Amino acid sequence: MGLPLSHATEVLLGLFIVFVAAQVGAEIAQRLKLPAVVGEIAAGCVVGPAALGWVKINEPLEVLAELGAVLLLFSVGLETRLEDLKRVGRTATSVGVAGVILPFILGAAWAKLSGFDTPKAMFVASAFVATSAGITARVLHDLGVLGRTESRVILGAAVIDDILAMLLLGVVTALQGGGAVNVSGLLFVAATAVGFVALIAFVGTHLMRRSSPLLDAPINPLSPLTLSLALCLGLAAAASFLGLAAIIGAFLAGMVAAESRQRQALERQTQVIMSFLVPYFFVLTGARVEIGRLSTLPMLGTLALVTVLAVIGKVVGCGLGARSLGTRSALVVGVGMVPRGEVGIIVASLGQQARVFGGDTYALIVAMSLLTSVLAPPVLKRLLCGLPPEPRDGEGEACHLYAVEATGHGPAGAEAEAAR
Amino acid sequence: MGLPLSHATEVLLGLFIVFVAAQVGAEIAQRLKLPAVVGEIAAGCVVGPAALGWVKINEPLEVLAELGAVLLLFSVGLETRLEDLKRVGRTATSVGVAGVILPFILGAAWAKLSGFDTPKAMFVASAFVATSAGITARVLHDLGVLGRTESRVILGAAVIDDILAMLLLGVVTALQGGGAVNVSGLLFVAATAVGFVALIAFVGTHLMRRSSPLLDAPINPLSPLTLSLALCLGLAAAASFLGLAAIIGAFLAGMVAAESRQRQALERQTQVIMSFLVPYFFVLTGARVEIGRLSTLPMLGTLALVTVLAVIGKVVGCGLGARSLGTRSALVVGVGMVPRGEVGIIVASLGQQARVFGGDTYALIVAMSLLTSVLAPPVLKRLLCGLPPEPRDGEGEACHLYAVEATGHGPAGAEAEAAR
Repeated sequence: MGLPLSHATEVLLGLFIVFVAAQVGAEIAQRLKLPAVVGEIAAGCVVGPAALGWVKINEPLEVLAELGAVLLLFSVGLETRLEDLKRVGRTATSVGVAGVILPFILGAAWAKLSGFDTPKAMFVASAFVATSAGITARVLHDLGVLGRTESRVILGAAVIDDILAMLLLGVVTALQGGGAVNVSGLLFVAATAVGFVALIAFVGTHLMRRSSPLLDAPINPLSPLTLSLALCLGLAAAASFLGLAAIIGAFLAGMVAAESRQRQALERQTQVIMSFLVPYFFVLTGARVEIGRLSTLPMLGTLALVTVLAVIGKVVGCGLGARSLGTRSALVVGVGMVPRGEVGIIVASLGQQARVFGGDTYALIVAMSLLTSVLAPPVLKRLLCGLPPEPRDGEGEACHLYAVEATGHGPAGAEAEAAR
Repeated sequence: MGLPLSHATEVLLGLFIVFVAAQVGAEIAQRLKLPAVVGEIAAGCVVGPAALGWVKINEPLEVLAELGAVLLLFSVGLETRLEDLKRVGRTATSVGVAGVILPFILGAAWAKLSGFDTPKAMFVASAFVATSAGITARVLHDLGVLGRTESRVILGAAVIDDILAMLLLGVVTALQGGGAVNVSGLLFVAATAVGFVALIAFVGTHLMRRSSPLLDAPINPLSPLTLSLALCLGLAAAASFLGLAAIIGAFLAGMVAAESRQRQALERQTQVIMSFLVPYFFVLTGARVEIGRLSTLPMLGTLALVTVLAVIGKVVGCGLGARSLGTRSALVVGVGMVPRGEVGIIVASLGQQARVFGGDTYALIVAMSLLTSVLAPPVLKRLLCGLPPEPRDGEGEACHLYAVEATGHGPAGAEAEAAR
């Protein structure tokens, strides 16, 4: 009627449809015992321009999706404590490192052979490296095996490879665009990324351990949350300004906030905000996939190849890293590290939006992430059931910690929320 | 560097600056014993284009601000229970109704004399009518007088005038644009607004009372929240589609959700999401004010006139409505109803964005809202201290209910959050 409300109506309708699609998709996926994320991305494919076309991708949706990704990585950071990483120790580190190197090499080799130049091939490959700590933790939690050595190693290594993926993303992002790659430029870029991450991760967490009472100083009783969110937005902007991905800053802000005394309240509150914003990220991820592109036989063949490479990279790489645990346990660790998720998909989104690669590669990476997330859990379950029982020494703090991480999107931590 | 991140950096930087400005402004205001809202709007004036120019008003910020307004009205609705309204009874109703009619007449008369045509004058006037339930509740809470009869009447009447303001906004919004105002058109528009509000308020709440277990049916343990948010977005889009303001739909969604068994958890969780999004609304409100416009003597004179009209409208209108309580108590009620806030400012924003009126009128309305919010509390305090003590019959449910409403933006309810 009277006022020019049609644009406002369109925006609100888009927000509504995306949000509802996410809830429906998550519900269906979880009833099918799949991760909620898978359902949300699939819902995005369905309502997006490639299928039903109910949702147009416009700037409001993109901003909410970006905020969702920022919050998601903030919450992953919030679960990442330097001390716990040290405690999980050498095995997790070797699993994490080997599990990044091999998938990166395989991914880069495939991308290079597919015709990408070296910087772009490295960007594509960096979408192969990060295990979804959230999805894996959820599966281990559901199986009730969070206390096992294999589980501790998997979760520690998943966090380590998140950090390595962040570093890698910083380096490959900054490598794009500059025509010739010279060694001094590469070193400068790597130094910026490593320096920023190291500065915040070590100095920031150190400062926070001493000064967390400051978070309670303002009058506003929600100030620990609002100050942490301000830190999150500030470091995201700073990372973006330095040419790194904004989510790296958000992840670091989470790591800093994790050292505060108010960490548990922050986790609960972040979950609530995420329940509103993160669905926008996953539904838009799905909506950007032009599923038509995957319908040809050559593309399906490529998808199979890429997925096999992604699986081999983790099973062999991580398995080698965990060989000190014995063959069967090393296999469990390798399979447990297979699911890709949030981080890989975020890398893929960044690459597509920055036109590092086109719709085909984007569709392949997202589909590969979904497939690994869907395929690994049943295999992991079977392998774990075949293992000899391990004397339960109680589920240590580290495990509880990462169990909550499942709430990165799933209900595990949300249960805690609902139960409080 | 490489990737075209500059737009992303700019957007993130804007989000960061606005969020930090809000926290700083709220903190300063609260240390000066002023409502947090006043500080956030003032912060917006400072960082906005009219002063420092650190923030450009772009679509991402506008969408977040709109979501903030939608959530704010959702939370006001969440505190509004039909049953409580019935209980507060006849006095509150007559205060609410008289306190809408007189300010509306005064506002419309002023706008008409200032040269607006009738539909626009009605729009301007509708920004005069709504008392800020949040600010008033906060003041009464701080004085520890929530249990007094006057307080109950004020809070009940504030809710009733929110509803009347919503209805009025629906009608005047739909009246804009259509050149000639004919009676049948007016009736149709009024019928649509009243019909939509009545349908959702009565049928929706009735259905929710019977079916709140459904909110817990999905696997996601945060589902009562996500389903309520979906309802909020859906009704906001529906209201917008019908030519009403989106916030009307959000308010109604809140009223419906208030009937669910999960109301208290919803309140807590909504507060958390609001702490992230509502600051965008108030800072942008301030950033849109071209404070330069208020610096001329004629404009300052007009501001004084408008503020006096706004004060008289409520003190006389509400005072008459409350005359059964005795002169002194009626005066307390009248002064308690003076602060304008969220709803009036939202109406002003809508009017400016829809070009119903220009920057001068917008600046006047926002400044009037701020002045009434700053001026009334000290007077109210003095009046209340002069009243004879009333036998405390315990702070009834209705009062606790609306005390929480202060968290619409202030710390009152957030304390509850922090304390849990």
